[in-house]
Amino acid sequence: MTLAETIRNIRPIDQACMERTQARLDRLTKPRGSLGRLEELAVRYVGITGEEQPKLPSAVVLTFAADHGVTDEGVSAYPREVTAQMVLNFLRGGAGVNVLASHVGAEVRVVDIGVDHDFGVLFGLIAKKVARGTKNFLRESAMSREQAMEALEIGMALADQLAAQGIGLLGTGDMGIGNTTSSAAITAVLTGETIAQVTGRGTGIDDDGYRRKVEVIEQAIMRHQPNPNDPLDVLSKVGGLEIAGLAGLILGGAAHRIPVVLDGFIAGAAALIAATLQPQCGDYLIASHQSVERGHDVILKRLGLRPLFDLSLRLGEGTGACLGIGLVHAAIKILTQMATFDEAGVSERAT
Amino acid sequence: MTLAETIRNIRPIDQACMERTQARLDRLTKPRGSLGRLEELAVRYVGITGEEQPKLPSAVVLTFAADHGVTDEGVSAYPREVTAQMVLNFLRGGAGVNVLASHVGAEVRVVDIGVDHDFGVLFGLIAKKVARGTKNFLRESAMSREQAMEALEIGMALADQLAAQGIGLLGTGDMGIGNTTSSAAITAVLTGETIAQVTGRGTGIDDDGYRRKVEVIEQAIMRHQPNPNDPLDVLSKVGGLEIAGLAGLILGGAAHRIPVVLDGFIAGAAALIAATLQPQCGDYLIASHQSVERGHDVILKRLGLRPLFDLSLRLGEGTGACLGIGLVHAAIKILTQMATFDEAGVSERAT
Repeated sequence: MTLAETIRNIRPIDQACMERTQARLDRLTKPRGSLGRLEELAVRYVGITGEEQPKLPSAVVLTFAADHGVTDEGVSAYPREVTAQMVLNFLRGGAGVNVLASHVGAEVRVVDIGVDHDFGVLFGLIAKKVARGTKNFLRESAMSREQAMEALEIGMALADQLAAQGIGLLGTGDMGIGNTTSSAAITAVLTGETIAQVTGRGTGIDDDGYRRKVEVIEQAIMRHQPNPNDPLDVLSKVGGLEIAGLAGLILGGAAHRIPVVLDGFIAGAAALIAATLQPQCGDYLIASHQSVERGHDVILKRLGLRPLFDLSLRLGEGTGACLGIGLVHAAIKILTQMATFDEAGVSERAT
Repeated sequence: MTLAETIRNIRPIDQACMERTQARLDRLTKPRGSLGRLEELAVRYVGITGEEQPKLPSAVVLTFAADHGVTDEGVSAYPREVTAQMVLNFLRGGAGVNVLASHVGAEVRVVDIGVDHDFGVLFGLIAKKVARGTKNFLRESAMSREQAMEALEIGMALADQLAAQGIGLLGTGDMGIGNTTSSAAITAVLTGETIAQVTGRGTGIDDDGYRRKVEVIEQAIMRHQPNPNDPLDVLSKVGGLEIAGLAGLILGGAAHRIPVVLDGFIAGAAALIAATLQPQCGDYLIASHQSVERGHDVILKRLGLRPLFDLSLRLGEGTGACLGIGLVHAAIKILTQMATFDEAGVSERAT
């Protein structure tokens, strides 16, 4: 699907379906509403998918990897080559996202959408490199508008493929040294918050590095003046290829009525891009966790999302999304496996 | 073990072990501390068990069921016979706790420690009935001191058995119409907070019922004057048999160096009893969730515990503990399955 088609295919979620699902939850052997946000999740899942008797969906965490030219400015605590090294770690199953995905029965798929390394042909890697990383956006645009569109389309096409394969639940993952800098810039532009308000310490930069990071973002925004009403302009000027890919995945997921479980800050920046292109897609998003990264809170409020948990995570990769997928599965099982008052012969409340 | 032996066997957790575990976590391919509370959980698990290379522990949620004479005062939205009906529902696998335990690979075991119903011989039910429910504590003591001790000892003996069976992780569960009333009374006595501060709406009582509930607790405490320095006195005057059983399980678990994942408010009241008998046992507790029930917060603060998540649950049964067990398993897998920087050939941070 093209971007225009994808945007057109994103419809409101099914409210009538959601009401019937809450009515069913209310007949299960528990006080009404006593499973709190698990009930909300079940209702939301049915509203998104339209499946009133949902089967447990196969889940995939799609981890998009790309490099960032802005790392030249010393905005990250880790060297740039870590992006490629971590891609190899993902493929060998040694990273946090591998462990947590396996824990919840989800599959990790890794997309090279812009890593500054030649992997050759590598088993398991989805090779979709748009460029060997972005340019240093302090000095020039991170990418061309065409590249931003290409990366978005890659995300959408992957959503099409996953939908065709019967995947029913998506998690977002990301790997890219420097990508909290790009995400903070996107967030500042799209929410209008101050840069200090949306910039955090990423992988753990020190005070000097933090000041530099804020300054770099300030100067870049001043120089490029990204247009907050034109997400492709924002992506091309201060974005990242993995962020563009994720935005495409989110739109594509929504177009296929597949719930998308967001990881943390980077996923949030991608969701802001997607929701600016098509506000309706927010209803298809499930915020897994509240990240430690400053700015994530701002994004979630803007998107009207309430995270499921706060475990002080700040790893990225899709680790938080994995735990969110586990909760979505739990919610679906509550809806489909619990006995009703009638089935169990349990008395309902007196009043 | 007797109560005195159990209390004596609860030792400080292993700090040196915990430091070595954090050092190992710091060598894994992620920024230091970036898995937040999952890292804390892994460290705590190792500190409790002393296993530095932990295997994934088999987990059991023990759901203690008992009735409460105080339901005669109209303190609950559900009729008293629901306790027995829900026990049958647990045994058939139709309740919330069954679904969530199965979701995380834990086993539910159900203990009749005081249900006002004759189950006869029932496959799967652990028959340990001390009495057919407590007495109405508005008018007389809920139970005798001997019964309170018997229920505590049942909990400790079950911990002994589970330890002997190689169970490495315990979750607390409870079922007892009326038990938030008893738990609120215990909490008020043991924390010194006002009754209104620790009394919530349980399964969902209306305003009139809520006022009655607070009044009943006030009058009961006034009449019986439970001694906050004597947990057995508190249990016998305003307690519940399932709460006493849970307190015994907690102490027994700690004595066997088995982490105990607490469910919500009822588990919290039991933990207050246990921690008054042996303050050291608090280190063996993992608070799964922040319950909606008012008073739970007071308990967690008193015990120095920070809940892992807040999903607005208020079902009890052990449902929250199940999700907590899932997170403990996730934390152990992070510790044992992730690659180190060396193994993965990933560069460490520059600074």
